[in-house]
Amino acid sequence: MILGVDIGGTKSAAVLGRADGTIIARREEPTEAQTGPQAILARLIALARELLKQQDLSPRDLSGIGISCGGPLDTKTGIVYRPPNLPDWDAVPVRALFEEAFPGVRVVLENDANATALAEWRYGAGRGTQSMAFLTMGTGIGGGLILDGRLYRGANDLAGEVGHQTILIHGPLCKCGKRGCLEALASGPAVARLAQESLHYGRGKRLVEIAGGKPAQITAKHVIDAAKEGDAFCQNVLSEVGTYMGIGLANLIQILNPERIVLGTLAVHAGDLLLEPIRKAVAEYAWERSRSVCSIVAAELGDRAQDLAAIVLAAE
Amino acid sequence: MILGVDIGGTKSAAVLGRADGTIIARREEPTEAQTGPQAILARLIALARELLKQQDLSPRDLSGIGISCGGPLDTKTGIVYRPPNLPDWDAVPVRALFEEAFPGVRVVLENDANATALAEWRYGAGRGTQSMAFLTMGTGIGGGLILDGRLYRGANDLAGEVGHQTILIHGPLCKCGKRGCLEALASGPAVARLAQESLHYGRGKRLVEIAGGKPAQITAKHVIDAAKEGDAFCQNVLSEVGTYMGIGLANLIQILNPERIVLGTLAVHAGDLLLEPIRKAVAEYAWERSRSVCSIVAAELGDRAQDLAAIVLAAE
Repeated sequence: MILGVDIGGTKSAAVLGRADGTIIARREEPTEAQTGPQAILARLIALARELLKQQDLSPRDLSGIGISCGGPLDTKTGIVYRPPNLPDWDAVPVRALFEEAFPGVRVVLENDANATALAEWRYGAGRGTQSMAFLTMGTGIGGGLILDGRLYRGANDLAGEVGHQTILIHGPLCKCGKRGCLEALASGPAVARLAQESLHYGRGKRLVEIAGGKPAQITAKHVIDAAKEGDAFCQNVLSEVGTYMGIGLANLIQILNPERIVLGTLAVHAGDLLLEPIRKAVAEYAWERSRSVCSIVAAELGDRAQDLAAIVLAAE
Repeated sequence: MILGVDIGGTKSAAVLGRADGTIIARREEPTEAQTGPQAILARLIALARELLKQQDLSPRDLSGIGISCGGPLDTKTGIVYRPPNLPDWDAVPVRALFEEAFPGVRVVLENDANATALAEWRYGAGRGTQSMAFLTMGTGIGGGLILDGRLYRGANDLAGEVGHQTILIHGPLCKCGKRGCLEALASGPAVARLAQESLHYGRGKRLVEIAGGKPAQITAKHVIDAAKEGDAFCQNVLSEVGTYMGIGLANLIQILNPERIVLGTLAVHAGDLLLEPIRKAVAEYAWERSRSVCSIVAAELGDRAQDLAAIVLAAE
């Protein structure tokens, strides 16, 4: 039996599961990020204890605890630095606190992107591959790399930041402070911004309608919904975003020659409306010999991704 | 005792050495590429036998044979496909031919960029690191990746093509057929082209002088020589090329978070005249947290690189 803990910016969860990916039980609650790290972690430890009690289990029944949390963090020391979604966190010894609360149980801490990559590799769209890249396409473009059958973390746990390669040297400003990052061109907010910026000469009427008549409130979801209805304006927006994403993936393919690339969130929602322009750009910007061995697919785990991300850490 | 065989486009060599990087003896001869794969390999096998005989050794004294050759090739089957520098080669079973010639001796075939990366990692500028990228900066920009303490080859031996990531979407045509590849912006021929294209309004007089008065014959070496003399025009050319290289390396750092990047040829010749602009661009285009743990240095093995590249394959 494995205890998985997922620490998110808005909600967090404790999960009991098995190494094969079966979820036995889960409890979720709001993170209440403003209460600070000590309070959040105390609540999560209490939540985990309740979950064990509910299942008539004791900490002795646990073979391991996996904790998935936003980075930056140090997997060697188990310390979490300043995740953008958790204000007031700075050098929080998350692993040590859980080790203290559950003595004798092995605790593994990993950043959420790497953990989700491992989950998709072991239980989802990456099953059976030896080398795989997983990329979220949500608020940001985070990622994790499985190379030669194991998670690759890099020198200080920062490998896989595929979303912060430079695609357009003088491109739009990215939240990270650089210009023209893939994330600034192909994340959810980038889809919304591109659509908003293109609303000239009466274009995008259906999109504005779906967004309640308010262009400033257009989101990536509105764009995808309209594109699915057949709206050409929104399909073009997805096609442009897909081209940038495809260039970023082509670079990844040239550098890592992976067997599979698994894409989350936007790619899951939009499906071929986004995957097809991505594949078309990859065909243009990557060598045939490398891209022909690399399939580009949507993530499979959906709502279970966060739970399994925490479980898989202790299963590995 | 290890036999190393280096198959190049103009010359090839057989080398005897030890796993610690000591070279005992070597024989070199022109490849005579036009004679075709069968003749070339027969001559190399004969050369290797002579070398053994000279040292009073027999094939039984060999612990392994390492063969370094231009790709594309398949390390699993030991077959070399169509290296651009070896015309008429197509699906040549190089490993099998050496196994036949030296029965009972383990033979390892690897592409030259990966083999050189291993050699720099084990004997040269990458010593002591767990994750390292090696990039040639010569006629092309090839490369090899050492990740978590071992060579990473990718799904079909094409990992490490860092030189064929797209840096400028509508950039100059690359020899590979794509546009705006790093190789088209920062290889030796790119340095020469950039210098030639910039010779307007009487600029670059010293460079043209060094090139014998013939702008069309300017090479990267001329540019570096003039820059070393203090010529501002040529220093600017190197600075521009270094900026492109730095953007490519920043992308690599974002994706792989390596401990070290080792650069060959141009970087070795030009030293800080190229390394400084590279490091400056990396500081602008990569996150401080990732680049601060990554040193960017020139390769160390020089003339010994090819010999050690072959030796290291059997030493690993």
